[in-house]
Amino acid sequence: MYKDNIMTSVKRVLTGITTTGTPHLGNYVGAIAPCIEASTQADTESFLFLADYHALIKCQEPAMVKQSSREIAATWLALGLDTDTSVFYRQSDVPEIPELCWILSCSAAKGLMNRAHAYKAAVADNEAREADPDFGVTMGLFNYPVLMAADILMFKATHVPVGKDQIQHIEMARDIASRFNHHYGELLVLPEAVVDQETDVLLGLDGRKMSKSYGNTIPLFDTEKKLKKSINKIKTNLLEPGEAKDPDTSTVFQIWSAFATPSERDSMRREFEQGIAWGEAKKRLYELINDHLSEARGRYDVLMNNPDEIERVLQKGAIKAREHSAPLMKQIREAVGIASMA
Amino acid sequence: MYKDNIMTSVKRVLTGITTTGTPHLGNYVGAIAPCIEASTQADTESFLFLADYHALIKCQEPAMVKQSSREIAATWLALGLDTDTSVFYRQSDVPEIPELCWILSCSAAKGLMNRAHAYKAAVADNEAREADPDFGVTMGLFNYPVLMAADILMFKATHVPVGKDQIQHIEMARDIASRFNHHYGELLVLPEAVVDQETDVLLGLDGRKMSKSYGNTIPLFDTEKKLKKSINKIKTNLLEPGEAKDPDTSTVFQIWSAFATPSERDSMRREFEQGIAWGEAKKRLYELINDHLSEARGRYDVLMNNPDEIERVLQKGAIKAREHSAPLMKQIREAVGIASMA
Repeated sequence: MYKDNIMTSVKRVLTGITTTGTPHLGNYVGAIAPCIEASTQADTESFLFLADYHALIKCQEPAMVKQSSREIAATWLALGLDTDTSVFYRQSDVPEIPELCWILSCSAAKGLMNRAHAYKAAVADNEAREADPDFGVTMGLFNYPVLMAADILMFKATHVPVGKDQIQHIEMARDIASRFNHHYGELLVLPEAVVDQETDVLLGLDGRKMSKSYGNTIPLFDTEKKLKKSINKIKTNLLEPGEAKDPDTSTVFQIWSAFATPSERDSMRREFEQGIAWGEAKKRLYELINDHLSEARGRYDVLMNNPDEIERVLQKGAIKAREHSAPLMKQIREAVGIASMA
Repeated sequence: MYKDNIMTSVKRVLTGITTTGTPHLGNYVGAIAPCIEASTQADTESFLFLADYHALIKCQEPAMVKQSSREIAATWLALGLDTDTSVFYRQSDVPEIPELCWILSCSAAKGLMNRAHAYKAAVADNEAREADPDFGVTMGLFNYPVLMAADILMFKATHVPVGKDQIQHIEMARDIASRFNHHYGELLVLPEAVVDQETDVLLGLDGRKMSKSYGNTIPLFDTEKKLKKSINKIKTNLLEPGEAKDPDTSTVFQIWSAFATPSERDSMRREFEQGIAWGEAKKRLYELINDHLSEARGRYDVLMNNPDEIERVLQKGAIKAREHSAPLMKQIREAVGIASMA
């Protein structure tokens, strides 16, 4: 009995990474590291995917989407994601996903999409400029929550880690799944949102949240030289060496804390109070991060020069993913009436 | 040189049949017969498909979608569609179609869909009832022109036969293809609408256009007994035997003309003027149609009892269809940046 209970309490966690942009320290601290950590837990099945169909909504530069896919895959692998215990795949290798997206769209109310935050924000922007409310809005953007629902429901994910701004999309996936189940039978599992802890947000070069859209990021696997240069750009105040500095308002200290052990953190806190020079603090931060990442960077560089190896891992992941998606899609086809006649 | 010119003048005609409902005489006269006839022409490549993803928009009754798919496939095959010279397939057997639908949605302006007739009609209905404008509108209905664009563009169709109400959808497919080509290169072929001749519209039992939505149809392959019964239900006026009847306002004569040779038509016209009894005219109409259809009905009944054979033909068609869709999708994936890394 206990064993059964344990079995049914397995969480299936699904995370998609949109393939636009280069992974940075903020992604690492806030998403990649905790996600890889979670994937090692015995009660968790991790599904992780390169969301390249989603990338097409935002980015119509093929070279950038391609490069980003390679960088993101290499990053996760270099950081030690275990692709034997987790399912790591590229969205566009699973043809059942766009198929499910279409089928779900027939159970998704348009009114639901009208209320999506991302769409409403685009409309508000347009209205502020007195433009047509739908100016520049593609069907991809408008339909994005349906694709996200397909991503999640395709693999019967029970838990989906999201930022606060994405909770609504999980609610939409639940709504669409409920309507589908109501018409066609209980085939889809309703997922739960797991909201990221705000404490995991890393600050960027200018002291705001580190984010590609602010242009304030420190790329995760730049060369040592570039990493040093980036860290030197972190905004600080004008206090001189010897003057006590407030660690709690310092980006340098915040990033330090994200990589340091508790005792290293306490020790740096004391150094701040004792007036460590900014140059010295940054040098120490560089060394800490570099020590933390240098091994993984070596693996990353090897992978980036060996796309065939990345592709091999992704193809293996696609096979694993489709072991889940193909049987469910077969059931869904039967349920909606488009199955084989034989 | 002449040969080259002939090659480039080949028309590729694409026709989808939504798998809701049972084929009736109106479908036969207005669409199936001319389409099969066109498929025999040397300068035409015909792509014909069961539009079962489209069926899901209108119909959430799986048994009905399934039954309709079987009936429609059996009908086209029984009527002699040559599946060696044409490409006859089921939409849901071509995974590249929903994938292309997603990719195109990222090139499709939402504003374009706002102006689609079917969507606007739904909104107008809701507004007339003072309901929410999007009440009952699914994303499937709203997104339907994008799926139709994918159907067409996937196979580089040059000509798409449509009713007047569908011309707009071909224009949308052209618009979406143009935007895609503008961003990613000239991969997609802009299709042309070929508008059905109004003369091909058959009248139904009540004298209005024969249409499932009016409930006035005569099913194509009912039993002889049921066919006779249906024909006897055709609305006529109260003129007695011996009284001259106007052929040009008679549904009986209109349906007769659709199946008769020119000389049979002229001869029946004279009989109308000479006062043929309605009962006799209907008996003759039954005989004409039954003679015309009885052989095909025999083949239809065999096929309906042999779904494995239908499935075999559809699978053969899917292979042929995918010989077109898979290479184009490979090019499209390269173009948008989601191709294999190897």
